[in-house]
Amino acid sequence: MERRSFLKKAGAGLAVGAATAMPAIAADAPAIKWRLTSAFPKSLDTIYGGAETVAKRVAEATGGKFQIQVFAAGEIVPGGPAALDAVTSGSVEMCHTCSFYSVGKDPTFAFDTAVPFGMTNRQMDAWYRYGNGGKLMREFFAGHGLYNIPAGNTGVQMGGWYRKEIKKVADLQGLKMRIGGLAGQVLAKLGSVPQQIPGGDIYPSLEKGTIDAAEWIGPYDDQKLGFNKVAKYYYYPAWWEGGPQITTFVSQKHWASLPKEYQAILELACADAHVEMMAQYDAKNPMALKQLVGAGTQLRPFPKEVLDACYKAANDLYAEISAKNPTFKKVYDDFRKFQSDQNLWFRIAEGSYSNYMASAR
Amino acid sequence: MERRSFLKKAGAGLAVGAATAMPAIAADAPAIKWRLTSAFPKSLDTIYGGAETVAKRVAEATGGKFQIQVFAAGEIVPGGPAALDAVTSGSVEMCHTCSFYSVGKDPTFAFDTAVPFGMTNRQMDAWYRYGNGGKLMREFFAGHGLYNIPAGNTGVQMGGWYRKEIKKVADLQGLKMRIGGLAGQVLAKLGSVPQQIPGGDIYPSLEKGTIDAAEWIGPYDDQKLGFNKVAKYYYYPAWWEGGPQITTFVSQKHWASLPKEYQAILELACADAHVEMMAQYDAKNPMALKQLVGAGTQLRPFPKEVLDACYKAANDLYAEISAKNPTFKKVYDDFRKFQSDQNLWFRIAEGSYSNYMASAR
Repeated sequence: MERRSFLKKAGAGLAVGAATAMPAIAADAPAIKWRLTSAFPKSLDTIYGGAETVAKRVAEATGGKFQIQVFAAGEIVPGGPAALDAVTSGSVEMCHTCSFYSVGKDPTFAFDTAVPFGMTNRQMDAWYRYGNGGKLMREFFAGHGLYNIPAGNTGVQMGGWYRKEIKKVADLQGLKMRIGGLAGQVLAKLGSVPQQIPGGDIYPSLEKGTIDAAEWIGPYDDQKLGFNKVAKYYYYPAWWEGGPQITTFVSQKHWASLPKEYQAILELACADAHVEMMAQYDAKNPMALKQLVGAGTQLRPFPKEVLDACYKAANDLYAEISAKNPTFKKVYDDFRKFQSDQNLWFRIAEGSYSNYMASAR
Repeated sequence: MERRSFLKKAGAGLAVGAATAMPAIAADAPAIKWRLTSAFPKSLDTIYGGAETVAKRVAEATGGKFQIQVFAAGEIVPGGPAALDAVTSGSVEMCHTCSFYSVGKDPTFAFDTAVPFGMTNRQMDAWYRYGNGGKLMREFFAGHGLYNIPAGNTGVQMGGWYRKEIKKVADLQGLKMRIGGLAGQVLAKLGSVPQQIPGGDIYPSLEKGTIDAAEWIGPYDDQKLGFNKVAKYYYYPAWWEGGPQITTFVSQKHWASLPKEYQAILELACADAHVEMMAQYDAKNPMALKQLVGAGTQLRPFPKEVLDACYKAANDLYAEISAKNPTFKKVYDDFRKFQSDQNLWFRIAEGSYSNYMASAR
């Protein structure tokens, strides 16, 4: 017994010595420096911060050998769809963005981020990792020269700021709302007039009444932009963003050039950013919401009648797009089938627990 | 323009060449081989699989230099609290387990996994990364010679299998139920008789009627053990497991011996396993639930009266433990305060969206 115990200790000592005496990433590992353009400004520290998390984790795991320099929207490339275009064109190696900014090119881009009445963050993760989502979207993005790695989620967003109450479907008629993509197309079916306005122009537009309503993200980000000062009603939920995913895109050419270990490390760093962003939003939103309500914001759930009308309009839109876009249809059909099973399961254990805890405060 | 373009291409070519010509992890990086004991059997592929995900990702990111050999419960160390004890004693470097198996030593161990009427998986992530949870639990585990890294979650579990219906609080009186830890102590306050029975013995005990009820995990795992054949009623939710976290524990001594890069890679691998396990459960539970219901299982929500009684009993238990255990009190007070804000926020956007989607199928 004593001899065995001695050998064990000696062995452990050797292993420890070996590990600390040598650097884990040796001097001849390749030094790589890439540029990442974020689609978001630095002021949105949570969503912009996702790219910084990725860069930081990659540097830590490679002893600083693989450096990713993060640029905010506008520094080297504008925000919005331009971030993804910059990767496609090869002017930067990577970006961190929401692919649904590119729905103008193909509505299939939306599935990587969010579609109206789509899946929640956990359901998206399940669809990507154990459903067909990961495979289908990898194929789709490969066709655009892109390699996608999920790296963040905001959770269900808020339904935006309104100068007047939305009590019935008819109140959507003529509503000039800052909202983009497929959600704007759904609202247009109900008579609203969707507007594409950059983040910085929303406040003055709402203030002057050039627009009647605007959607942004959630309490933490919305509070920063001060929308509560120019619109009284804060609606929920954003039925168009039930779990918007933020993704790191690498050009296929650059992805293929990475050593396998760096590929693995970049995927892991994105997984960490994925958890980190969601955690940060969940931690920061409650206080912001309390402060907004304390300062007079009127919280309102969308009436069921309004949600039902939007849901029907969304389904009509999906049928129209599916009829002319087979790529969209292929992904949509799989997405909806998977989502249907998910909703069945989530209303049992997860839903009943959350509803009980909400009432048991 | 042409010259600049040429230089750009030449530069890109060089970088790519350098990256592919050399291995990312060089020959003199330390080779380390560690043993990890899982608290779970291989048959529970999802929860046991968390450790395999960690090992696989670490190997990929280090070019096979850092090897983690995974052993199932019983192979070198028994399941349950023994896995954590094996790390504390130094007989293995790591384990993958639920720390709440060690509540017999100190009920504070429960907060890393789940406590009755505790936080959901997302709320736990927020508390760990942006609340005080991470700091408080690191301190607590350091006192036991352990370094903890979250690496998995099951989501809200099911409330277990019952031979008879639970229609009122009085039905808990005398109920012999296979349930452990703090949840068992809560039920004991309501007259139940909690039983500690290993997974493999639950089926015969339920069949013979030695016990009246048993909780396990959720549809996917429960179906494997065939509980539906010996108990008709399947209740939800598990109010004692609203988001049980599974954690990788490394002995402090071994953690300190790792090069910084390997520490970073191990943390990232655990973050990936964290997302992976949740995704796998969410993807696999719906089909299992459908099959169980199709085969005659009767799904039942716990009556509100029963949940209210259990909630009150849980709060009584927390007050009693807090009065005599200052470490528990310190963590509990922070946990509850954070959870209260989380529940406020989750019933707005997230809750209203999930409830609408559940009804809009």
